[in-house]
Amino acid sequence: MKALVYYGPGKRSWEDVPDPRVLDPEDAVVRVDGFTICGTDLHILRGDVPEVQAGRVLGHEAVGTVTEVGPGARTVQAGDRVLMSCINACGRCRFCREGRYGQCLGGGGWVLGHLIDGVQAEAVRIPFADASVHKLPDGISDEAALMFADVMPTAYEVGVLNGGVRPGDTVVIVGAGPIGLGAVQTARLFSPLQIIAVDLVESRRAAALAFGADRALSPDDDVVATVRKVTGGLGADVAIEAVGVPAAFDLSVAVIRPGGRVANVGVHGKPTTLHLEDLWIRDVTITTGLVDTRTTPMLLQLMQAGQLAADRLVTHRFGFDEVSEAYDLFDDPVGSAALKVAVLRN
Amino acid sequence: MKALVYYGPGKRSWEDVPDPRVLDPEDAVVRVDGFTICGTDLHILRGDVPEVQAGRVLGHEAVGTVTEVGPGARTVQAGDRVLMSCINACGRCRFCREGRYGQCLGGGGWVLGHLIDGVQAEAVRIPFADASVHKLPDGISDEAALMFADVMPTAYEVGVLNGGVRPGDTVVIVGAGPIGLGAVQTARLFSPLQIIAVDLVESRRAAALAFGADRALSPDDDVVATVRKVTGGLGADVAIEAVGVPAAFDLSVAVIRPGGRVANVGVHGKPTTLHLEDLWIRDVTITTGLVDTRTTPMLLQLMQAGQLAADRLVTHRFGFDEVSEAYDLFDDPVGSAALKVAVLRN
Amino acid sequence: MKALVYYGPGKRSWEDVPDPRVLDPEDAVVRVDGFTICGTDLHILRGDVPEVQAGRVLGHEAVGTVTEVGPGARTVQAGDRVLMSCINACGRCRFCREGRYGQCLGGGGWVLGHLIDGVQAEAVRIPFADASVHKLPDGISDEAALMFADVMPTAYEVGVLNGGVRPGDTVVIVGAGPIGLGAVQTARLFSPLQIIAVDLVESRRAAALAFGADRALSPDDDVVATVRKVTGGLGADVAIEAVGVPAAFDLSVAVIRPGGRVANVGVHGKPTTLHLEDLWIRDVTITTGLVDTRTTPMLLQLMQAGQLAADRLVTHRFGFDEVSEAYDLFDDPVGSAALKVAVLRN
Amino acid sequence: MKALVYYGPGKRSWEDVPDPRVLDPEDAVVRVDGFTICGTDLHILRGDVPEVQAGRVLGHEAVGTVTEVGPGARTVQAGDRVLMSCINACGRCRFCREGRYGQCLGGGGWVLGHLIDGVQAEAVRIPFADASVHKLPDGISDEAALMFADVMPTAYEVGVLNGGVRPGDTVVIVGAGPIGLGAVQTARLFSPLQIIAVDLVESRRAAALAFGADRALSPDDDVVATVRKVTGGLGADVAIEAVGVPAAFDLSVAVIRPGGRVANVGVHGKPTTLHLEDLWIRDVTITTGLVDTRTTPMLLQLMQAGQLAADRLVTHRFGFDEVSEAYDLFDDPVGSAALKVAVLRN
Repeated sequence: MKALVYYGPGKRSWEDVPDPRVLDPEDAVVRVDGFTICGTDLHILRGDVPEVQAGRVLGHEAVGTVTEVGPGARTVQAGDRVLMSCINACGRCRFCREGRYGQCLGGGGWVLGHLIDGVQAEAVRIPFADASVHKLPDGISDEAALMFADVMPTAYEVGVLNGGVRPGDTVVIVGAGPIGLGAVQTARLFSPLQIIAVDLVESRRAAALAFGADRALSPDDDVVATVRKVTGGLGADVAIEAVGVPAAFDLSVAVIRPGGRVANVGVHGKPTTLHLEDLWIRDVTITTGLVDTRTTPMLLQLMQAGQLAADRLVTHRFGFDEVSEAYDLFDDPVGSAALKVAVLRN
Repeated sequence: MKALVYYGPGKRSWEDVPDPRVLDPEDAVVRVDGFTICGTDLHILRGDVPEVQAGRVLGHEAVGTVTEVGPGARTVQAGDRVLMSCINACGRCRFCREGRYGQCLGGGGWVLGHLIDGVQAEAVRIPFADASVHKLPDGISDEAALMFADVMPTAYEVGVLNGGVRPGDTVVIVGAGPIGLGAVQTARLFSPLQIIAVDLVESRRAAALAFGADRALSPDDDVVATVRKVTGGLGADVAIEAVGVPAAFDLSVAVIRPGGRVANVGVHGKPTTLHLEDLWIRDVTITTGLVDTRTTPMLLQLMQAGQLAADRLVTHRFGFDEVSEAYDLFDDPVGSAALKVAVLRN
Repeated sequence: MKALVYYGPGKRSWEDVPDPRVLDPEDAVVRVDGFTICGTDLHILRGDVPEVQAGRVLGHEAVGTVTEVGPGARTVQAGDRVLMSCINACGRCRFCREGRYGQCLGGGGWVLGHLIDGVQAEAVRIPFADASVHKLPDGISDEAALMFADVMPTAYEVGVLNGGVRPGDTVVIVGAGPIGLGAVQTARLFSPLQIIAVDLVESRRAAALAFGADRALSPDDDVVATVRKVTGGLGADVAIEAVGVPAAFDLSVAVIRPGGRVANVGVHGKPTTLHLEDLWIRDVTITTGLVDTRTTPMLLQLMQAGQLAADRLVTHRFGFDEVSEAYDLFDDPVGSAALKVAVLRN
Repeated sequence: MKALVYYGPGKRSWEDVPDPRVLDPEDAVVRVDGFTICGTDLHILRGDVPEVQAGRVLGHEAVGTVTEVGPGARTVQAGDRVLMSCINACGRCRFCREGRYGQCLGGGGWVLGHLIDGVQAEAVRIPFADASVHKLPDGISDEAALMFADVMPTAYEVGVLNGGVRPGDTVVIVGAGPIGLGAVQTARLFSPLQIIAVDLVESRRAAALAFGADRALSPDDDVVATVRKVTGGLGADVAIEAVGVPAAFDLSVAVIRPGGRVANVGVHGKPTTLHLEDLWIRDVTITTGLVDTRTTPMLLQLMQAGQLAADRLVTHRFGFDEVSEAYDLFDDPVGSAALKVAVLRN
């Protein structure tokens, strides 16, 4: 079969590799019907994630059809149309028992396209299949489903739930890429009073407004002053960092009210300066996290019911044989105005 | 009457000042029967808290007897023996309605010995008396009661409750001064599996063990390795920072397990470096806070019932006319092995 | 001034009474601009609430303009246009400090039109004014504001918050009178997957659909079977009882899934049979409660922002001199199809 | 091998049955080293649990040594000394993913000695072994471990955690049998101000005091008045029902304060009358539940650390060949003063 293989920084190839097969009783092998590319894949290609070895098939966001299962798979069977979660779960370790699948100690967590071969391929082996795939309900297209492999549950769990968004809140979302726009949508599930999105790029600010933000600011605007003005001087109840650079984190902390919460979602490569001399007295809570995907079934139900518009995050479509073009386009989000790309079986 | 007056960095004087009187309908005037000194008072005397103006009477931890109340005081009356909380509460603002008195927007919060004259005096005016003093039950001595003006509720609310200590947890408490020792005691209320205290000073490590810590380490020991070893490699469930310097905060973050909580209690004067490049994926929660004193009545009940040993924090006693000696001794905790001093009416 | 005076079961009169005046430093006197009638007022008139004495002015839901305040009122002043909450709060007792104002031990709770003269009058004395009235933002009409004195916070706090409604939930609301319809609207704030309303009266079922319910059933339909069918056999996540009769409570319990929550809002006059022989093993939570009105300011903000449609609950309008007709109509909800009536200053 | 077989109401026999074997890849077969008898076993023998068929081996609380595992068992292996939980968990269904194992939809929940053969035998087949047994740490005897198969996690999860016991609370525990005494011990983990135990039997009241209750009352004492007196008139914060009869449930509801919680643990065979006419306004929460055993590992750690005294619940010991005498004695708790019996391999 064909797969997108990583060969070290800057080197990738869509090429023939051996077909995957069931190695463990709880494995499933899934024919991939479509996948997408994550910003993390770009990080890997820049060499930022050294655990990823040359020869690894990339990708952790896909939909497909189960072709084979091991004898230990109980709920998944051949023929099922499934969403493959970016997180696998052994289901037995301390963290899996708490629903904290992202921190799985038993061989799960984020492994696909990272520690084992991933989903940017014509087929893939999925460990712990029962706990790691979700049967897709009717009425959700492959394209829409792709948004629930990583983007939507990450935005919801690590951003909105960790941030504790409540009805009536003022929510600042720093970064209006796919994750930030997912946070705009899923923060809306809790009926905040207002959502203020912040992004450097005009097209992303426009997207934030289209997805339900009440205001969209550039970081060059005086964001802190604006937030204070629209909150009676107090600051935001919740800030969600969806970029992954120090300046975005610092802004998230700067806009928060006493007693408020900062939820970091961004993938950071560098430290920042934490101003404890100001923060110690301000009753602030800061959270970090990797997605657990425990809310994925619920989010899929809301999508099916028409209460989410995740499919609108897909701005560009490619065939499997165009995966290289898909990568090139996705790697230039400002030029292409791409949010998410869908790479679909031809 | 006599009071301890601040005259700028390094300058204090126990001298005659005008008697306090009721200025607002909800005020009480209280004869002070005893007070203690807080590390924050030392900060003020070093000039670190510029809002405190020359001429200000210091102090925010005291017990006394009410001598006069305004017409708006409903629950406090002359003759009541009361604990004066370090936090006053207007009872009307958004934050007071949430029990977040430390952030009071209506003239309360930490004001005593800070923005208005404090309690290191023979008498003091207490604003919003109903919500700012606590009638003392029988069986709690003045000395013991002093520990509940600030130390014990701060350790409990900002450390133990923000840290979310649960039965079975491993709790690391960085700093074994009065607040850290209060955290040892009040963390015990939730039956953690083990408490590991960390302090530079041998006498304080010994105190931590005496107050119920299971281990006491020096920061020069390999604290991170020890915590890992006793937690099956995972790290601590909760870390409580009770020092207020970057190294102590950094150690608190370093010992935490995925999914754990770091509760900062220390008063910080400098920023620190937050290693988001490690933390973003680790599901860590960091909290800061000023005490609200909303749990003070409950803590006093537990003290009365013999479930806390806060009185053992008082290591030295002085008369009002010895307040200068009390300050000198308290300012040399290593030399004096002092934890808290009680300055009592002669 | 004129007021609606209760003279024992079945007897009421709109007649001259003495003007109210400030009796306590924290009182306000408010000119009433509009009031509404509550089902509880009808209960009083049937003699079901024996604490209400002959001669009492009824009513606990009103808007008006402050004309005088006592010296202890800090945040309210003459000229303020205010919503009068059905709950007053001393702000000092244990329950007020927890935000549980409905259980106030210091002279508040539900007192208006119950233990002291109420708001169905040209003017009213409001105790503990700061904590018991809410300044009305621009853009909220008197009619709309009336829905926030009792109906909307009761539906939200006692129904939706006690019920713990979460995104993706199936919520059954038994009773589609004003409270039930308020629950439909405020449950929507948490984006449930589906809301199923149950009412005997066809016009109320139609109203439920108009306010956002997904299905409306008669209790004569097989409600339990329908709920099971649309929840994969499990039952509802949350049931909200908004009637106050045993059959409605029993139905609420019968539809709930293992691990679900039943929130009782209805005012009950009789006991029911609790089937512990079925329930003990099912992980069910049942809550009861009186409104605290602690969420009223937030709900008013959402109304102002257009996120609630509470004004649509007002189906009929009267002048003060038509209060008797208003009562007659409201006492025949099936015949009149009335939801809430607004009785407005002429 | 020998096993205790149920043959219909009143009929049991310790007799030869076929040896268990691995039927499913995730099964383990465990040699039983000791078991205990539950009040539920007595209910079965009275014919109260009609799902239990003649020929069924009884028992759901045991310790033993794994002798064989299926190929799908990952964390359990032959030779492991394990506690067998009264609850099995498929680990895949919606409820298992929430940690609500007692409600498992995938073949787990309470099945042992109920829907499949149980543990009162020389060996037993344990489905879903990884999620259903707990490796026993050193230093916990078989006798002590038996208390963690059902009694201690039930008391803790369904009583103490559902009741939300907090430091400073007044907790009433109705029933001082094994579960009630487990609740006394595990409520202590949260440092309540006082625990009041209620039981008809003097020896059980004495046991409650020995396990840490502050008072022990007979239901013939005026329990409601006593609770009011020691709570300033308000009532208990938490009541835990650990009997399973209407009178005990009713008493639990009667002692509760406004805003308090009633946690039912008892297994009920009959309905009761719920006085909604009093309760609707009182902000009361009532919970029911079957144990999930998700806290068993933590409780075992506290036992190992000496923070629990569960072993003291074992009052009588028997050999496997004396199981009939063990049943007879356990069925006469008043006459025998038995709490729990340990039936141990000879």
